[in-house]
Amino acid sequence: MDLKRMGNQTVVFANPPVILSSHSVVGPKEGQGPLGKTFSRVWKDQLNGEKSWEVAESKMLQEAMQGAISQAGVPKDHIDFMLAGDLLNQMISSNFAARQMALPLIGIYGACSTMALGMALGSMLIDGGFAQYVLVGVSSHHDTAERQFRSPTEQGTQRAMSAQWTVTGAGSVLLGRSGKGPRITSATLGRVIDFAEKDVNNMGSAMAPAVADTILNHFHDLQRKPEDYDLMASGDLGAVGLALAGEVLKQSGIDMGTGFTDCGVMIFDASQDVHAGASGCGCSSVVFAGEIMRRIKVGELKRVLLVGSGALHSPTSALQGESIPGIGHAVVIEA
Amino acid sequence: MDLKRMGNQTVVFANPPVILSSHSVVGPKEGQGPLGKTFSRVWKDQLNGEKSWEVAESKMLQEAMQGAISQAGVPKDHIDFMLAGDLLNQMISSNFAARQMALPLIGIYGACSTMALGMALGSMLIDGGFAQYVLVGVSSHHDTAERQFRSPTEQGTQRAMSAQWTVTGAGSVLLGRSGKGPRITSATLGRVIDFAEKDVNNMGSAMAPAVADTILNHFHDLQRKPEDYDLMASGDLGAVGLALAGEVLKQSGIDMGTGFTDCGVMIFDASQDVHAGASGCGCSSVVFAGEIMRRIKVGELKRVLLVGSGALHSPTSALQGESIPGIGHAVVIEA
Repeated sequence: MDLKRMGNQTVVFANPPVILSSHSVVGPKEGQGPLGKTFSRVWKDQLNGEKSWEVAESKMLQEAMQGAISQAGVPKDHIDFMLAGDLLNQMISSNFAARQMALPLIGIYGACSTMALGMALGSMLIDGGFAQYVLVGVSSHHDTAERQFRSPTEQGTQRAMSAQWTVTGAGSVLLGRSGKGPRITSATLGRVIDFAEKDVNNMGSAMAPAVADTILNHFHDLQRKPEDYDLMASGDLGAVGLALAGEVLKQSGIDMGTGFTDCGVMIFDASQDVHAGASGCGCSSVVFAGEIMRRIKVGELKRVLLVGSGALHSPTSALQGESIPGIGHAVVIEA
Repeated sequence: MDLKRMGNQTVVFANPPVILSSHSVVGPKEGQGPLGKTFSRVWKDQLNGEKSWEVAESKMLQEAMQGAISQAGVPKDHIDFMLAGDLLNQMISSNFAARQMALPLIGIYGACSTMALGMALGSMLIDGGFAQYVLVGVSSHHDTAERQFRSPTEQGTQRAMSAQWTVTGAGSVLLGRSGKGPRITSATLGRVIDFAEKDVNNMGSAMAPAVADTILNHFHDLQRKPEDYDLMASGDLGAVGLALAGEVLKQSGIDMGTGFTDCGVMIFDASQDVHAGASGCGCSSVVFAGEIMRRIKVGELKRVLLVGSGALHSPTSALQGESIPGIGHAVVIEA
């Protein structure tokens, strides 16, 4: 299957919505990583006093969303919609967080691409005139993901070198029609791409073609090239997938250069034994809410392309012999 | 917990999007029910030649979406976005259908409220100026749901009288900025409401307060009353939940009268042994795409309120002792 330019997948905002605030809450391992100091809060352990990992993940998402609201100083009842998603079956982290938030909920699912999908959709709701404020938040938790998707954590199964470590983290942004902050200027919504990768321990490879497809269409739609961006970050391909996405794009005539990296590569370092890097909805959301927003605010980055990447399979589809479809959703953030 | 009016949860469309076509595909039991003749296609069995129920469900959704496209006569590459969701873990029915459709995908999750959520969101994307055409489709399948949420079907577990029968069905509508057909004139997005119902065999009761909350806010926001609608259909509360929603609304001063019914009550009759009625994303989508659209087209119904209702729990949250949060999303359709 070759990558093809689809036509026009990109929407450009007439009045680009503002990122009024960003908040991130992570687990201890993420706090010990190279971006540790950029997160709003680091939990001391994976449970933070809750009775289960699942309850803890939902509370973490709630904390991130409340944090984004407080930081922006916007009264909660001025928020029109809450957009949220996560990896758990039937999205219980988001749904139970939404029960506490008491805001109109739009549940979204794009696996690890969900943060970018939420930022794209939230921007459309604001620029389309349907909302003044939209709260976007996503989460993942290493232990809820391990036991749902892989093996009981107590089993200590050896991990493949191409495997990625699911981040324990929740990130949130509050988007507004006006105010101070970087703006979301355009978004490219991805289509599902499947290059027949079946190895659930190599999801970076499964997602790489979809990320490449979205980037290719994004550049084509806006007549841009890699040099037009200070940073292009996928989230989360890991080291294996990042290299592969670069290779696929090169074959399509695009050299991504040195500005192309991945949130799943940034969040942990080599000493942390995560193999190919990190993954999970939480990963790109906390790297964006923390490090990327920090670099935009201090003036290091003027224009950023965030490409959320999702592996759209389930344990059931994998056991039934299906390959792993991927998706990439991109948003452009400008200082 | 009392129901409270939130402020303004309702968006009104300046140029109401048009429902250009609607398509429904159902299983044999649904075909034998009172609405059998209103569906676009009835499968002879639950597998339709596929190797698993999960693959069959995804194919059914694809068939419904392709059907909506063909019926409208719109070239597929003119469609800007595909909005889809289902009940399966990680929404594999939708994701694998989207792999075949090759359209930019926005994955949405609202359990059984997903069709109404998709119609609301799709209308915002069109009226907001981001799309000319949006394809919305959702599905559920009795056997994929039974083995994922309840017990192996082979076990033949006795069902509670308050339990609902998950519909095997997929419904789809193609929305357009202009053209012939009924229009979506407004939408009320719901917030999560939880009255502490814990019985997973009584989801109608768990969802009823959320439906009542959304209807209450809808009437308040638009200064309307039940008499302003020819039909108000929730989907899917079943008989137990429908009675309860009416009761909750009566306590809030609203008598819904005889125009209030439920898609889960309409689709099967007493002889079909479904106990409290039907449920599943597919139910309200095929009842809307079939019977309700038929009655609008022949001029029987001028203004309809469709209130999708979702139970936002998972087997994991239920096993952990959590109650079942509900949500209701409403759209108004006018001839």
